Amino acid sequence: MSHNEEIKEWKGYAVKDLKAWERPELIDFQPKQFGDYDIDIKIEYCGVCGSDVHTVTGGWGDDVLLPVIPGHEITGRVVKVGPKVTEFKVGDRAGVGAQVCSCFECVPCKTDNENYCPKMVDTYNSKYPNGDIAQGGYSTAIRAHERFVFPIPKEMPLEQAAPMLCAGLTVYSPLVRNGAGPGKRVGVVGIGGLGHFAIQFAKALGAEVVVFSHSPNKEEDAKELGADSFVSTGQDGFADSWMGKLDLIICTADVSAGIPMSELMTTLRVHGHFIMCAMPDDALPALKTTDLSGNGALLGGSHIGSKKEAIDMLNLAVKKGVKAYIEMLPMKEAGKALKNVKEDKVRYRHVLKMDI
Amino acid sequence: MSHNEEIKEWKGYAVKDLKAWERPELIDFQPKQFGDYDIDIKIEYCGVCGSDVHTVTGGWGDDVLLPVIPGHEITGRVVKVGPKVTEFKVGDRAGVGAQVCSCFECVPCKTDNENYCPKMVDTYNSKYPNGDIAQGGYSTAIRAHERFVFPIPKEMPLEQAAPMLCAGLTVYSPLVRNGAGPGKRVGVVGIGGLGHFAIQFAKALGAEVVVFSHSPNKEEDAKELGADSFVSTGQDGFADSWMGKLDLIICTADVSAGIPMSELMTTLRVHGHFIMCAMPDDALPALKTTDLSGNGALLGGSHIGSKKEAIDMLNLAVKKGVKAYIEMLPMKEAGKALKNVKEDKVRYRHVLKMDI
Repeated sequence: MSHNEEIKEWKGYAVKDLKAWERPELIDFQPKQFGDYDIDIKIEYCGVCGSDVHTVTGGWGDDVLLPVIPGHEITGRVVKVGPKVTEFKVGDRAGVGAQVCSCFECVPCKTDNENYCPKMVDTYNSKYPNGDIAQGGYSTAIRAHERFVFPIPKEMPLEQAAPMLCAGLTVYSPLVRNGAGPGKRVGVVGIGGLGHFAIQFAKALGAEVVVFSHSPNKEEDAKELGADSFVSTGQDGFADSWMGKLDLIICTADVSAGIPMSELMTTLRVHGHFIMCAMPDDALPALKTTDLSGNGALLGGSHIGSKKEAIDMLNLAVKKGVKAYIEMLPMKEAGKALKNVKEDKVRYRHVLKMDI
Repeated sequence: MSHNEEIKEWKGYAVKDLKAWERPELIDFQPKQFGDYDIDIKIEYCGVCGSDVHTVTGGWGDDVLLPVIPGHEITGRVVKVGPKVTEFKVGDRAGVGAQVCSCFECVPCKTDNENYCPKMVDTYNSKYPNGDIAQGGYSTAIRAHERFVFPIPKEMPLEQAAPMLCAGLTVYSPLVRNGAGPGKRVGVVGIGGLGHFAIQFAKALGAEVVVFSHSPNKEEDAKELGADSFVSTGQDGFADSWMGKLDLIICTADVSAGIPMSELMTTLRVHGHFIMCAMPDDALPALKTTDLSGNGALLGGSHIGSKKEAIDMLNLAVKKGVKAYIEMLPMKEAGKALKNVKEDKVRYRHVLKMDI
């Protein structure tokens, strides 16, 4: 049996100044106080998410807890478990996504909706109730309550699992919760980190998939990922032949990319759902009531997923061969990775490999 | 047995110029060509809806088919039925709401969603496929396909039924479709023509009702209508104590009244629905994705209701004593009624009584 070992160095690549977000620097940091249900994971990989960019550039607001170590697509191995941990032991392959704590007591927490707990603690740029600072996965190690640690199936490489823990889960959860499955037709808007998972998971769940993209040159990728149809949103009237035909739209594209939301809404059947999974810096385009009343459509938000969904997702990925398209970089190149994400140059996910 | 009789005079109060919307004039008009499934109703009452104002003032756009006879909350008696009509006979009490035709062939039409048919014909300011102009109920008579004619229960006075056929149905349908019933807590935003029905129907369906209004002086009315709680939205932090507690919000208030949408969204439980039933002239307030992602809320539109729902609604109104609060005027005072609606002076619905 393996025994707890202490992480010797808590170090990570931090952005110290929003103006210098492209040049994270290696710093020492203090993890949260160790609790009875906590797990320490020695990190091997961390994906680079759009959220990392929104945060470190100040796009979501400049009230960032600096220095901030981004990263919430984390995989590695358990090196220490608290005395009350039951689901993990030292040596297990494990991961952490975009949330590291919640209140455990509210209705959402008690109904497998801990990802909607109003008192959630984000993986970075966030504070625990006692004031401890949460730092992310561009770092040697992460400490989190076991409810927010996910077991990684033995068949799945750790670098593959990493980007699924935010990008994957962020689309998997709304797919499942909005009924994607056999007999349903799902639209996926945008092919990027989230979109390339949305296409695959919608297919894996048994739905027909229609991809909408403003990049006609992504048609080949869309088809390879499993799309049944590809629609270029740059063409006038692109939505006309799809009017009333989709059960659900998963939107992974940034508003800044000029999403033609009103037109996309018309592709939904009566009371179909348009779920915005991207979290753009800017407000959504101003809708008129008539954009929603014509077919009684609903525009919804979503926030990552529950632990139960994360486990289901990983198992489905193994079973159906869902794959992250990865461009790997050493962790010291985190700045370059952030820049590439900001400039939409990655196909489709940077994963940072531990080098500290 | 009664026999068909011809309407002798097709006359109505029409707005001929958007700039003179407060002064409708009596005109002769040509009804649609009579069809095998058509019914002629001699009008006795017509409610005055916010839609009438939005249309004749050009608020929804100035491409109005002039002259326009508004009015789509119509009740009266059947005087003529086409040879294929099966549901009505001459002498029956009947009504027409905000829709007079649809394509009968699309998926919505075939699934009791004819109110979402993309080819619907509105009751006024609308054209039939053959070019015939649809004119509304500030008039002697209306002709419509029997699918869009509703039987009025014998227990219900015709003046009471009139405003239910748009205002009532517009809130009843989304209440039912979004699960209002025992064990559910429904928020109603705004107390006016729609709101006063929303409170009553939500209660009649068995839900707990929380009313949000920016008019603290409407608390008494809200309670009389059946509200369990009243929240004045003018107070800072009004939403705080309701966070995560509502299953559904039916919004009947105009955006121009400054609806605090972001705050209201926080009162919804995880994946709760906010249904916008008012159809303001202006775009909705620009939302940020975070307004929807915190609790995975959905913002939806709605458009009147189906015939099936209209019948269910009228029966429920009889059973549970739902009442329209009416201020009656003779039809020649349509202009005054429109002005009062525009200035939000009616508690809570003008009904015009036939005087032509």
